[in-house]
Amino acid sequence: MREVAIIGAGMAKWGELWEKSLRDIFVESALLAIDDAGVDKIDSMYIGCMSSGLFVGQEHLASLLTDYLGLGPVPATRVESACASGGAAVRAGFIEVASGISDIVLVGGIEKMLDVSGDGATFALATAADQEYEVFNGVTFPGLYAMMAVAHMEKYGTTRKQLAHVAVKNHHNGSMNPLSQFPQKITIEDVISSVMVADPLRILDCSPITDGAAALILCPVELAKKICKKPVIKIIGSGHSTDTIALHSREILCELGSTQRAAEKAYKMANKKPEDIQLAEVHDCFTIAEICVIEALGFVEKGKGGKATEDGLTALGGKIPVNTSGGLKSKGHPVGATGVAQVVEIAKQLRGEAGKRQVQNARVGLTQNMGGSGGSSLVHIMEVL
Amino acid sequence: MREVAIIGAGMAKWGELWEKSLRDIFVESALLAIDDAGVDKIDSMYIGCMSSGLFVGQEHLASLLTDYLGLGPVPATRVESACASGGAAVRAGFIEVASGISDIVLVGGIEKMLDVSGDGATFALATAADQEYEVFNGVTFPGLYAMMAVAHMEKYGTTRKQLAHVAVKNHHNGSMNPLSQFPQKITIEDVISSVMVADPLRILDCSPITDGAAALILCPVELAKKICKKPVIKIIGSGHSTDTIALHSREILCELGSTQRAAEKAYKMANKKPEDIQLAEVHDCFTIAEICVIEALGFVEKGKGGKATEDGLTALGGKIPVNTSGGLKSKGHPVGATGVAQVVEIAKQLRGEAGKRQVQNARVGLTQNMGGSGGSSLVHIMEVL
Repeated sequence: MREVAIIGAGMAKWGELWEKSLRDIFVESALLAIDDAGVDKIDSMYIGCMSSGLFVGQEHLASLLTDYLGLGPVPATRVESACASGGAAVRAGFIEVASGISDIVLVGGIEKMLDVSGDGATFALATAADQEYEVFNGVTFPGLYAMMAVAHMEKYGTTRKQLAHVAVKNHHNGSMNPLSQFPQKITIEDVISSVMVADPLRILDCSPITDGAAALILCPVELAKKICKKPVIKIIGSGHSTDTIALHSREILCELGSTQRAAEKAYKMANKKPEDIQLAEVHDCFTIAEICVIEALGFVEKGKGGKATEDGLTALGGKIPVNTSGGLKSKGHPVGATGVAQVVEIAKQLRGEAGKRQVQNARVGLTQNMGGSGGSSLVHIMEVL
Repeated sequence: MREVAIIGAGMAKWGELWEKSLRDIFVESALLAIDDAGVDKIDSMYIGCMSSGLFVGQEHLASLLTDYLGLGPVPATRVESACASGGAAVRAGFIEVASGISDIVLVGGIEKMLDVSGDGATFALATAADQEYEVFNGVTFPGLYAMMAVAHMEKYGTTRKQLAHVAVKNHHNGSMNPLSQFPQKITIEDVISSVMVADPLRILDCSPITDGAAALILCPVELAKKICKKPVIKIIGSGHSTDTIALHSREILCELGSTQRAAEKAYKMANKKPEDIQLAEVHDCFTIAEICVIEALGFVEKGKGGKATEDGLTALGGKIPVNTSGGLKSKGHPVGATGVAQVVEIAKQLRGEAGKRQVQNARVGLTQNMGGSGGSSLVHIMEVL
């Protein structure tokens, strides 16, 4: 297997992009990535997208986007793993470059969720859960994560206030990210007094509905060393794992087995341990998710995620800053784009291009992207050469 | 890159499977493939599916199917390229094994189209076209292929009767395939007098709406030689290309550029020429499609596809039998499953397991799978070792 580098990273402003279509949003971020890499050809494309069919009535997505990007006959494939579709696209691009099939691969992530047709965004998102056993019985994602939160609070004594700390931290980080959908700083009181969605989760515990895209350019490390004018970022670990798609099938509701196993694989490939990771972008679709994820990644012991967040371990300036971009919570969560945008943030941080939210001397970063209530997870580890 | 073999192929009966759910249909074919390969572990899975979101309200498909197949934490990703989703899954599995990331990969294809929810099967299928420029203006796929047929008839003098010959041949082949949805033999007169759908295409020029799945087991050739009790089939060529997604953007309406380019890549990788191919499964979603495809693959000169079909070149016993399985026309067309099922047929033929429709002494076969009106194409070439 060839070693794989990231030589381009692009992302335009996320939010309610009423004036732009699905294809416009993608092309904008893709051109930023191509420009960042300084390449004049692309050999292949992978697009992470959860449900352009249900959101905007368009499948055959990779072919459409290749066409609109002016890349004509380049091979292009869409990959889907619900909200982990972006991470799955990163892995597909990584494998394609590693295999030797293609040299320069564009990995994009996209979702246009706001001008949804058909049965609405909640229905479209719920198709990431088990339709026959969960959705038909009325389950939605806030409900599933609320059950995980209650289980975590019962088992470990995690508090309502600790959940709020995740949101406050991520909005603080997001206030320094000019591409964030919701860059407003918020307080613990704001979160605790916001409207209830699914007890104990309130609206400020939930990531928003977002239009947005992100893109990366990957190539072999050998080639990157020759053509890349910026520091070369190497993907040193890639892990992917699944779990039962239905939350009720799991023995422990508040443990993310797919994340734990994906991380173990990525750490092994990278020859790194959790304590070697200097910053991470993780899947905080709900505040409780970030708490469960940092436990599954081994950053803290099981049950200690809430306390660690409250104590500032994962804040900017803490031992391991988590979601410096603002995370899904503040930056936004266009589901198929999220996993790609996480890698964009780590690449920018490792190059020292993260502006006010820069983590000093960062050399090793991690991304964790998750589908459904943890039915699939992808973990990638990057190091600057 | 490692050499890649097919060691298992499975497909259950296709048709109107009202009594089986999406997951049941997949598991049935996947277990046949696993049993055929005789393996007791799977390292990774790829699922080709066009639109389980629009057809049955279920995304996060690969995770769901891994769960229901009892493969628990195995990495699994869905790939989509409209009706070429199955071919894209074959290629993803091929690249994964070639890269060295995984040894034993299950490649599945699935679509459950008949108990469609929402806006119906025609709407779901139309999302493979350009939604903003084609679908909003009323285009459907029979309409697009009808335009291609008219263009072919105008340019080359292809006749109404020659189109019918494609359907008659494929139903004749399908009558010998116990898994076909419509194994009835039909006549030229049946086709020409059947109900009009989009002039000149009549209902018997069109492939049906189908529930079905198919699955393959891939592994490195070196491993296959050790564990495989049946003849080892090697994937010697894989080509993938895109084209403008909208038919109106093409210079010549009746040429399939994506198929031609994908074939050139596959021939080059395989070090074969069109005349080396002994049989092929191609994407006859409409009768005109097979005529354009055999031209794009170089089996006949441009414009000669209709005449060659009429003359029996592509019939069983002809110089190059095409769609011995019955093709999409008779076997059925569960869109995401089609590209995988094509490879299943070639594998069975190259092993000498194709029963009454067996092509004698077949050693090299080809599959061609296409999305939309040719916006994407995948070509694979297989050889028995």
